[in-house]
Amino acid sequence: MSEQREDIGISHSKSEFSEWFSEVIAKAELSDLRYNVKGFVVFRPWSVLAMEEMYRLLEKELRRKGHLPVWFPAVIPEENFEKEAEHVEGFTPEVFWVTHAGNKKLEKRLALRPTSETAMYSMYSIWIRSWRDLPLKLYQRAQVWRYETKATRPFIRSREFHWIEAHDAFATLEEAEAQVREDMDTTEKVMHQQFGVPFIFMKRPEWDKFAGAVYTYAADSLMPDGRIIQQPSTHLLGQNFSKPFGVKFRDKEGKERFAWQTCYGPAVSRIFASVIALHGDDRGLRFPFSIAPVQVVIVPIASDRSKEVMKACRKVMELLLEKDVRVLLDDSENTPGWKFNQWEMKGVPIRLEIGPKEAEGGFATLVRRDSGEKKKVSLEKLVETVKKEGESITSNLVNEADAFFRRNMRKASNWEELEKEISKGGFVRAPFCSTGIEGVPCAEKIKEKLHGDVRGERADRKERPSKGERCVSCGKPAGAIVYIGRQY
Amino acid sequence: MSEQREDIGISHSKSEFSEWFSEVIAKAELSDLRYNVKGFVVFRPWSVLAMEEMYRLLEKELRRKGHLPVWFPAVIPEENFEKEAEHVEGFTPEVFWVTHAGNKKLEKRLALRPTSETAMYSMYSIWIRSWRDLPLKLYQRAQVWRYETKATRPFIRSREFHWIEAHDAFATLEEAEAQVREDMDTTEKVMHQQFGVPFIFMKRPEWDKFAGAVYTYAADSLMPDGRIIQQPSTHLLGQNFSKPFGVKFRDKEGKERFAWQTCYGPAVSRIFASVIALHGDDRGLRFPFSIAPVQVVIVPIASDRSKEVMKACRKVMELLLEKDVRVLLDDSENTPGWKFNQWEMKGVPIRLEIGPKEAEGGFATLVRRDSGEKKKVSLEKLVETVKKEGESITSNLVNEADAFFRRNMRKASNWEELEKEISKGGFVRAPFCSTGIEGVPCAEKIKEKLHGDVRGERADRKERPSKGERCVSCGKPAGAIVYIGRQY
Repeated sequence: MSEQREDIGISHSKSEFSEWFSEVIAKAELSDLRYNVKGFVVFRPWSVLAMEEMYRLLEKELRRKGHLPVWFPAVIPEENFEKEAEHVEGFTPEVFWVTHAGNKKLEKRLALRPTSETAMYSMYSIWIRSWRDLPLKLYQRAQVWRYETKATRPFIRSREFHWIEAHDAFATLEEAEAQVREDMDTTEKVMHQQFGVPFIFMKRPEWDKFAGAVYTYAADSLMPDGRIIQQPSTHLLGQNFSKPFGVKFRDKEGKERFAWQTCYGPAVSRIFASVIALHGDDRGLRFPFSIAPVQVVIVPIASDRSKEVMKACRKVMELLLEKDVRVLLDDSENTPGWKFNQWEMKGVPIRLEIGPKEAEGGFATLVRRDSGEKKKVSLEKLVETVKKEGESITSNLVNEADAFFRRNMRKASNWEELEKEISKGGFVRAPFCSTGIEGVPCAEKIKEKLHGDVRGERADRKERPSKGERCVSCGKPAGAIVYIGRQY
Repeated sequence: MSEQREDIGISHSKSEFSEWFSEVIAKAELSDLRYNVKGFVVFRPWSVLAMEEMYRLLEKELRRKGHLPVWFPAVIPEENFEKEAEHVEGFTPEVFWVTHAGNKKLEKRLALRPTSETAMYSMYSIWIRSWRDLPLKLYQRAQVWRYETKATRPFIRSREFHWIEAHDAFATLEEAEAQVREDMDTTEKVMHQQFGVPFIFMKRPEWDKFAGAVYTYAADSLMPDGRIIQQPSTHLLGQNFSKPFGVKFRDKEGKERFAWQTCYGPAVSRIFASVIALHGDDRGLRFPFSIAPVQVVIVPIASDRSKEVMKACRKVMELLLEKDVRVLLDDSENTPGWKFNQWEMKGVPIRLEIGPKEAEGGFATLVRRDSGEKKKVSLEKLVETVKKEGESITSNLVNEADAFFRRNMRKASNWEELEKEISKGGFVRAPFCSTGIEGVPCAEKIKEKLHGDVRGERADRKERPSKGERCVSCGKPAGAIVYIGRQY
């Protein structure tokens, strides 16, 4: 037993986060870095099954809010790409180019989409004619490719990632701004409440907006090492794209107007990094019940794999399958102890142990992955109890992640405090001169001396500096309250 | 009303198949050809919603048969690609190449995957170590890119398509051959029984195999114009890839052996072409209930959109939503007649009409898209009836497609008969000299003079020429019974 344990167990404590993260990814078989193109990884079944559930829940919420799915080509002609000046400037260094087909050079080279504004809006200009065609709310599930120059890490940052991008067009600025708020609500309902990833939406400073946006709201979350990771962002594009792309409509009075646009991009493979990191513990993964690849594992406890025990196991499996619970019966030849460790490491939320006593008595012993709590459950109440415990596991993980997040909210009112607080990790709330372009020197000083990033002002509530508060960087009167931290 | 009808109706009869197909695609808003890269199309919500259901049903069957999902990179380094000689020769003319990133030339150019053998098997050689790791059955849902030189048509043939590819590895040849049969069964269970697309699996002649395969079984279906369209194919790869890629395992005796491999590729976007084409009629699309984007449309019949009628409509919608029926209440300001035409054109299987009589009497009038049949249904029996009628619609469409398929099975025993029969469309069963490489001249003659293609021998049953039968092309004693027809 103990030899087997070592073989499959996680050897690093989660407090050594970076090593722990790499080890969990390898041992739980989430992804494989050995594919022979730098920055590209292979996603293995144990992560894909969970990410498919994440896609399902995100798409369900987007559909509920009136979005419909589309599939756009993965390639974008350079001429589209160049239409919006800031966009092309921002993305050009990161674009992979397709230049040849077979032995022929292509007449015009094609960008592998790094994001799809310039693909989709060329069609929006055809589809949108009148106010009756608005709002247009479309999303696609897609891969995007970006030639990242920063160090890549599976799930966190790679040159290919899996996301959803929603692109919406409206008749008025007010509706577009309401969409930005709706995207924030979607992030809360799905990423926080169902995946257990807490965040604050920050309004990014001018120098850190999405290329081509009027403004960018980005959900910043925290990793266990206290570093900030950017999760979904939603952008008010205003008319910055509708003008060069000619996305126009006739209003009720017959007058031609440019549409108002927004886009929103939850990166499923990146959110999964937060799911692994926030919920895992020293023994490995802990999945929220909602997205677990396997929600319940049944482990027979019988040295001789007796017929009675196996029969009881199969009966329990049928009961759960009937109610669409994702269940697995581990009838392999490994010992029960080995199976316990294996499925704990893989993060399965609920284990059902069934031995001769359980088989005879018509019950199962339920063990929770999150708390280790054990209880006997009669077969009559099995499905109901599994679902109830499942919900309770999800909300327990959400609460634990929230508590961690709250513990890492700090404050600083001057440079010395900032220096001290920032080294502890998390968010440091601080007065700052300006989030406009004139704030750049102050942000650069913080970056250079403290390796900290000015993430912006809160987008979910209004915060203003009190009278007398001064910029932590330059000491001039503060124009904004910002959040600063070290980022991924 | 009649003006509105003309506006949205289909003007071509299905007997003018090519024009009808283009018109349905445009008017039902299935895809859009106006994207500015040749051979690439945009898939719009009405097709994506159906194709998502098709993916779901295909993946469910693959999972049931022990496959697990993976996501591999979209790019493949040239060195992988070159490992299997026939494969590289077959695919090189069709590969799109990524050569640059940002302003940099890449050290090694990358193929956009035209298919993923050479991406996946490089990892299989790492993952597979012992007989315990076998069978390995993985699939991915992905886009692939091929620089087609033939004319492209949406869904039928384009330079980007959406498919599933399953790649399996086994310890023995017998298991691999059993997998090929399992793939045929999957095609029958899903594409035929659920999507209503009939086919015959043909064993492709030597000159028409998948590049790198030992043999290829391909499901040939028919379009309404009598032309043959290739649908999913499954390939026995034998050890042709496991040797160059080093996919090896230790057997129970500790001896190192090469794995036996298969692959299977249902192209969802192409199967959808058959769904449109086979089931549609002069009024537009007819969806099988199983994959319809909207299964039931509710149309209120009330000139004044009275409260009572709208209340009854909403109640019916709730009843159906609760049971996971995909339902839409059309409460737009269009006339009922316009709505009937619109949703018939879009292929919604069931229409529920609710007017003052229905609202008062607690029933709905159900109209079937396939047959036009009308009946009154009480609210108590509504869900049950909708599900029953839905199944009946699917099986009716399957039966109609099967009957069309059977009507287009022909026979020829000499050149004159072949010439006559081939012009009628469909499959012509004929004696042929050889499906080995020595049959090429005879196949070329048929191609050149009759525009016919030798599709191969049946893979689902053994057929041998009778004594005295002679090749329809050269007149030598026949070595095989083949099927010939004009193909897409």
